[in-house]
Amino acid sequence: MSEFIHNLTQQLAQWRRMFHSYPELGFTEYLTTYRIGKMLEEWNYSLFVGKEALDSDARVGIPNTTLLTHFEQKAKEHGVEDSWLCKMTGGNTGLVATFDTGRPGKHIALRFDIDALPINESTHQSHIPASEAFNSINSRVMHACGHDGHITIGLGVAKYIYEHQSQLVGKFTFLFQPAEEGGRGALAMTKKGWLAGVDRFYAGHIGIKEMPVGTVAATVKGFLASTKLNVRYHGNASHAGINPEAGKNALLSASSAAIHLYGIPRHSAGTTRVNVGKLEAGIGRNIIPDEAFMEIEVRGETKELNNYMADHAKRIINAAAEMHDTKCEITTVGSTEKMSCSSSIINDIKNACEKSKYVKNVISETSVSGSEDASFMMNEVQKHGGQATYMLFGTKLDYPHHHPSFDFQEEVLPVAVDTFTRIIEQENTYVLNRGR
Amino acid sequence: MSEFIHNLTQQLAQWRRMFHSYPELGFTEYLTTYRIGKMLEEWNYSLFVGKEALDSDARVGIPNTTLLTHFEQKAKEHGVEDSWLCKMTGGNTGLVATFDTGRPGKHIALRFDIDALPINESTHQSHIPASEAFNSINSRVMHACGHDGHITIGLGVAKYIYEHQSQLVGKFTFLFQPAEEGGRGALAMTKKGWLAGVDRFYAGHIGIKEMPVGTVAATVKGFLASTKLNVRYHGNASHAGINPEAGKNALLSASSAAIHLYGIPRHSAGTTRVNVGKLEAGIGRNIIPDEAFMEIEVRGETKELNNYMADHAKRIINAAAEMHDTKCEITTVGSTEKMSCSSSIINDIKNACEKSKYVKNVISETSVSGSEDASFMMNEVQKHGGQATYMLFGTKLDYPHHHPSFDFQEEVLPVAVDTFTRIIEQENTYVLNRGR
Amino acid sequence: MSEFIHNLTQQLAQWRRMFHSYPELGFTEYLTTYRIGKMLEEWNYSLFVGKEALDSDARVGIPNTTLLTHFEQKAKEHGVEDSWLCKMTGGNTGLVATFDTGRPGKHIALRFDIDALPINESTHQSHIPASEAFNSINSRVMHACGHDGHITIGLGVAKYIYEHQSQLVGKFTFLFQPAEEGGRGALAMTKKGWLAGVDRFYAGHIGIKEMPVGTVAATVKGFLASTKLNVRYHGNASHAGINPEAGKNALLSASSAAIHLYGIPRHSAGTTRVNVGKLEAGIGRNIIPDEAFMEIEVRGETKELNNYMADHAKRIINAAAEMHDTKCEITTVGSTEKMSCSSSIINDIKNACEKSKYVKNVISETSVSGSEDASFMMNEVQKHGGQATYMLFGTKLDYPHHHPSFDFQEEVLPVAVDTFTRIIEQENTYVLNRGR
Amino acid sequence: MSEFIHNLTQQLAQWRRMFHSYPELGFTEYLTTYRIGKMLEEWNYSLFVGKEALDSDARVGIPNTTLLTHFEQKAKEHGVEDSWLCKMTGGNTGLVATFDTGRPGKHIALRFDIDALPINESTHQSHIPASEAFNSINSRVMHACGHDGHITIGLGVAKYIYEHQSQLVGKFTFLFQPAEEGGRGALAMTKKGWLAGVDRFYAGHIGIKEMPVGTVAATVKGFLASTKLNVRYHGNASHAGINPEAGKNALLSASSAAIHLYGIPRHSAGTTRVNVGKLEAGIGRNIIPDEAFMEIEVRGETKELNNYMADHAKRIINAAAEMHDTKCEITTVGSTEKMSCSSSIINDIKNACEKSKYVKNVISETSVSGSEDASFMMNEVQKHGGQATYMLFGTKLDYPHHHPSFDFQEEVLPVAVDTFTRIIEQENTYVLNRGR
Repeated sequence: MSEFIHNLTQQLAQWRRMFHSYPELGFTEYLTTYRIGKMLEEWNYSLFVGKEALDSDARVGIPNTTLLTHFEQKAKEHGVEDSWLCKMTGGNTGLVATFDTGRPGKHIALRFDIDALPINESTHQSHIPASEAFNSINSRVMHACGHDGHITIGLGVAKYIYEHQSQLVGKFTFLFQPAEEGGRGALAMTKKGWLAGVDRFYAGHIGIKEMPVGTVAATVKGFLASTKLNVRYHGNASHAGINPEAGKNALLSASSAAIHLYGIPRHSAGTTRVNVGKLEAGIGRNIIPDEAFMEIEVRGETKELNNYMADHAKRIINAAAEMHDTKCEITTVGSTEKMSCSSSIINDIKNACEKSKYVKNVISETSVSGSEDASFMMNEVQKHGGQATYMLFGTKLDYPHHHPSFDFQEEVLPVAVDTFTRIIEQENTYVLNRGR
Repeated sequence: MSEFIHNLTQQLAQWRRMFHSYPELGFTEYLTTYRIGKMLEEWNYSLFVGKEALDSDARVGIPNTTLLTHFEQKAKEHGVEDSWLCKMTGGNTGLVATFDTGRPGKHIALRFDIDALPINESTHQSHIPASEAFNSINSRVMHACGHDGHITIGLGVAKYIYEHQSQLVGKFTFLFQPAEEGGRGALAMTKKGWLAGVDRFYAGHIGIKEMPVGTVAATVKGFLASTKLNVRYHGNASHAGINPEAGKNALLSASSAAIHLYGIPRHSAGTTRVNVGKLEAGIGRNIIPDEAFMEIEVRGETKELNNYMADHAKRIINAAAEMHDTKCEITTVGSTEKMSCSSSIINDIKNACEKSKYVKNVISETSVSGSEDASFMMNEVQKHGGQATYMLFGTKLDYPHHHPSFDFQEEVLPVAVDTFTRIIEQENTYVLNRGR
Repeated sequence: MSEFIHNLTQQLAQWRRMFHSYPELGFTEYLTTYRIGKMLEEWNYSLFVGKEALDSDARVGIPNTTLLTHFEQKAKEHGVEDSWLCKMTGGNTGLVATFDTGRPGKHIALRFDIDALPINESTHQSHIPASEAFNSINSRVMHACGHDGHITIGLGVAKYIYEHQSQLVGKFTFLFQPAEEGGRGALAMTKKGWLAGVDRFYAGHIGIKEMPVGTVAATVKGFLASTKLNVRYHGNASHAGINPEAGKNALLSASSAAIHLYGIPRHSAGTTRVNVGKLEAGIGRNIIPDEAFMEIEVRGETKELNNYMADHAKRIINAAAEMHDTKCEITTVGSTEKMSCSSSIINDIKNACEKSKYVKNVISETSVSGSEDASFMMNEVQKHGGQATYMLFGTKLDYPHHHPSFDFQEEVLPVAVDTFTRIIEQENTYVLNRGR
Repeated sequence: MSEFIHNLTQQLAQWRRMFHSYPELGFTEYLTTYRIGKMLEEWNYSLFVGKEALDSDARVGIPNTTLLTHFEQKAKEHGVEDSWLCKMTGGNTGLVATFDTGRPGKHIALRFDIDALPINESTHQSHIPASEAFNSINSRVMHACGHDGHITIGLGVAKYIYEHQSQLVGKFTFLFQPAEEGGRGALAMTKKGWLAGVDRFYAGHIGIKEMPVGTVAATVKGFLASTKLNVRYHGNASHAGINPEAGKNALLSASSAAIHLYGIPRHSAGTTRVNVGKLEAGIGRNIIPDEAFMEIEVRGETKELNNYMADHAKRIINAAAEMHDTKCEITTVGSTEKMSCSSSIINDIKNACEKSKYVKNVISETSVSGSEDASFMMNEVQKHGGQATYMLFGTKLDYPHHHPSFDFQEEVLPVAVDTFTRIIEQENTYVLNRGR
């Protein structure tokens, strides 16, 4: 396998840079999906694109039509075929690719997230994507969370299976998931049924916890269940000097909601969180504000704690409307579940990587915060008796995730591909003890 | 008439001191009503006591049973006959007394309020009621707004009519009203129908605006319409350390309500007011408070403005319950209407008092703030085409109304009686140009 | 004079359309000032441009450098000479033009405001500026308050004086004021001393109160004193899931401030107002917001009431910073004073317009709300014994002021010029009884 | 030992009932201290009473003079000698009693709290103290937390030492601590230096965690560090209708503080708590409230977390004063520290109780919430190398602690005395293997 990885290394960097230079926001990954799909097609994967891959109605946080149309149009200009666009139009991006060896063996599923972020990428020459000219050509969109790397890793693993199919058994399902940011895409893929009968589920992330290249964490704990809400208040505008009594103040509804949300009582059963991350209200100094918008999230150590927070939050948001006689709309735009990696999987990963030249160190478990919608897939697999884990792949980071100068060491790519393929080799091959 | 006043002056002080020493709170004026009634009975007035005088269901802000029973029991001990108590039991105090001369003439109504306040009277020797030993014998109850004087003035006027009945025409209705404080009693008397067909209505107050004894204001403007609300929030108690999530925080509902009430938008049509005058919540430091109580008032320059404030207030109070998942009860415990004195009456009063030795100066109009439930009666009279006014009778005040050391100059009593009786003489006599 | 107006009418519409098509925001009126100035130069006015016309340090609410540079650059491209730009650079726009007849007579000052608004003008064909192709060529800037008309009227009056100088006496001062919107420019011109020794001051507005073309209000009442504040809160960002305790929440500071600002106690001495017209805070759902921005205004019926509101507002804004451990910056970006038109001026205006064919009806006084910084000039004139008024010129309006489709009837332009010139003729001419 | 306990059982119930019938609030335990002291005096203990026992200046939450004087006077009436009162006057209650065997051995300290609560005891016949006539004779004061039992247990243990002194070694210190409720007395005793050189420290509580009589928990975990604050806001009163602008609203300061206190950010390092348990503000509906009072507590899993909460709380309380232009006073009226029982002590307790007929079951550790100021003493002992624990003694409870009907099974008293004395026997005797 070392030879496969060795030969692939340059290719991995090229793929990564291609995806990096053309980032697309969640549910607008039209060209990204197409490019992934065209390669997998060549490698004889069965493809399920867009509406075939996800339960369209289970998506949340879909961008507005203007944004969707803009990216569809651009994708078309970049050569995405109509037959593909047709399956994706309206924000139904992402794809599922399956490969069946025809031989009995485990059903292994792998998830790679493909969306980018609404961040304006740095053009500073100290930022390698800028100095080496593969930075984003899409204004105010950037792969600032490493999903360009994740796509690349998925393609590397898919190529391995294609090239080593004669030695493999069982079945493989690749989920190239849209809209991980904000926890919006995983549930829609899960609801389509892809995880039924899966024996082993693997996902992962580069970075997050700073570890050197070559270090891999086999499992993580600490991801919180979460719910993301967008809230709009609609009131009445009126002139603040002439007839203030005619106004219904949406800005005050939002302000009341914000203040009271942070006061949701602490819970004796465990960790909870709440944040109003954005508030925008009003258009001018002398007008009673008639519109307000808020981005809110709640989290909990368990599903129950997250629901406790979400229920309180919704009641408070509604009460804040009544407080100022406005109307409110609450939209759930994302969610994640609590995630528990299967600890039984740890030794398997350690064994698989024992002889790797790329993986220097496998840590059993690391602790992170934050939230991940792969949790929906993992919980589905575990519910049906399968095992699932979420790994971290070490890389030095000069800037944190979601920063305009975020970048990672491309050396992490072969490490991750090696980890996934060694696991696959160990779990789903009938040619043991090949020299590596 | 000067002789009548002259002879009565000492009697007025005696009456005032008797009433002062036995103050009763609104709707508990059992002994007060009885004492007034017994005198009027002697003077051949037709009496309507308690439930005969007011629409019992239209009362608001009735004290609790413990308090009612306490004062009924005390009244009994002080000799109030059972036949009287029977008409008043349960907080139906006050009386209406009518005198019909049998001769055609105007129907004149006069209103005198009779209740005291929950204030502990000063026992300092610089306080004349204390040093001259007529201060309150009822602990924590005090005539601190001069209604002891008002009762006295009413009796003086009633005695005048009795003694001068041969010279008078028309009909007279005296309303000795309970529970003026908090705006609780006037509406109940008004709804009983006493003001139908009234041609002239007179009420008044001693003090308020500081003017010297001998100065009378013929009309006042500036009284605001008002609504008084009591609010109770009911939540759930829980241990603040052990399980804060189980609490439903009534203290926070009350706090949210308070803060938002003051933010009711100012109104372009005129003056509005709001106040939370009292807030009591919680029983101990480590318990999530499950009960809260608030005393609230709103005011408006017009009925519409007052309703605007009351409507907003009620919505906010309810929203504050929803905000913290508590229940709330809103009770209207009092109200007043906007009052507009009939300006046509000013010259009549000036003329009537022109030759008085007691009334030195009649001011056409003065401006006050605050609220008065005589407004209900005045509006009723004016609605039917009658004329109404609310006068002020000057007296020096060392301490403001509602102060534990409030007192007034007893010299104001003959001035007020002289004013009322001269008006009556002018309006309702057939013996003109008597020497005075 | 009718002939002068008649001949000028078409010219007025042309001027108006030129100014309409190139609107500039307050303190960026580089081309506007230049165009006005070049005409006045031809008519032998003495010019004081930019820093010569205003006290630069007394300006408030100056746009940021990017915006200033952008408009200066555009002005240059449109041919504004360097010698002019030099006097205006850095947001010192506007000009004062004086004309001295050399003959003894009154000193008359006239003020015309010249700035536009940050509004994107409608391109709908029902909008006359669009269908007749004189709509704004500056994106997101629009003359939506009629100041294009005001400039035009000022030029018309200036031309009249130039052409009739042989018949006139006294002295004339034209203040073409920048940045009236937000109350930012008048004080800076006033402080330069232009109003010292002025006998008569005239300003005015088209529209505001809907009256037909031909109706003029000689005075207005009801403008409130006002103060406009911008507030920025600076806190600390932190991840809302990982370490919420490290955040200092600027969004909550702004929300607390907003809620408490509306609760500034009503004042018994008169009308007060407060509004938070805009609030923007936070950048993403899962980040504790570290920045917040608010646009606030307070108003009062008098200077004292306005100060009462502003003092309370500032204290509350600071307290809201301390409440959440953030820092705040308060910037005063505009203000207006209470304005009282000199009522003695009413009959003069009525007399002057009596024989006009354009002015059909002069109303003595009308009542408006809102605020105007011409108040600074008027108060200065009145303080030194002069008389001042603010007139309204009727025009039908299909959309209110500040609306993207705002437009007015150009027929109001000759009406306004006729009003001003007839006043001038009446006040400052030595050839009486000319046939008109 | 069983015989000692057997013979003492009836006496324990008598003592308990005597103390139950005369409860005294924290820092007013004049008669309680005297009664304890007089018994210990008989048993040859060295006594340190009142100011001798505690650092007077380190007390917090001292009652007002009226209350202190009331209880001192009552104590005098009940026979407390002047020499004793003199040492205790002004709220310096409690005592320390030491017994030195003169033989080398461990220094064992035991703490028993002696104060009662401001609760009106039930007089219902289903409440055993009422039906068996030993309920509180002090109106609105009640032993509702079992400290009457604690005193009794302490006396039982003291008597054991007195009677078995010939078999014992080392030194014994009994701390009969005042004002445990609210965490007010322990620090003052600790600061007097009693814990220096203590090898073993034992404290405990009956009930808390419901366990049957005979079950003992050797250690507890979960007590939070805490700080208790009283807050007073002082503003200005004014008439809410006449001049609301003249008021400075203390009720609103308290309300703002309450709402914002619950919003102190959750802390990633562990459990935190906050509660406003009581709020009282304002005196009348139509007066802007000038006074407000709040009882507040914060808690944290560690000292640092508790300090984090207390620091934020104080800043918020001050900001709420500034918000409404009031003044505030913050008084720390109690505190507790985090408590960690020495786990090494568990087996010692289990061994000591192995053969007891009274102690049926020793649980190693139980988990509770709440806070205890014995933590100050325990931390002091552990800081100097000693070991300390806090035990729980099971009893069935029909009503929770602090309830007007709280009562416990008196059978728990001999269980607790047996536990303490067996530990003492095991640790500090030279006569081993006595038959029991």
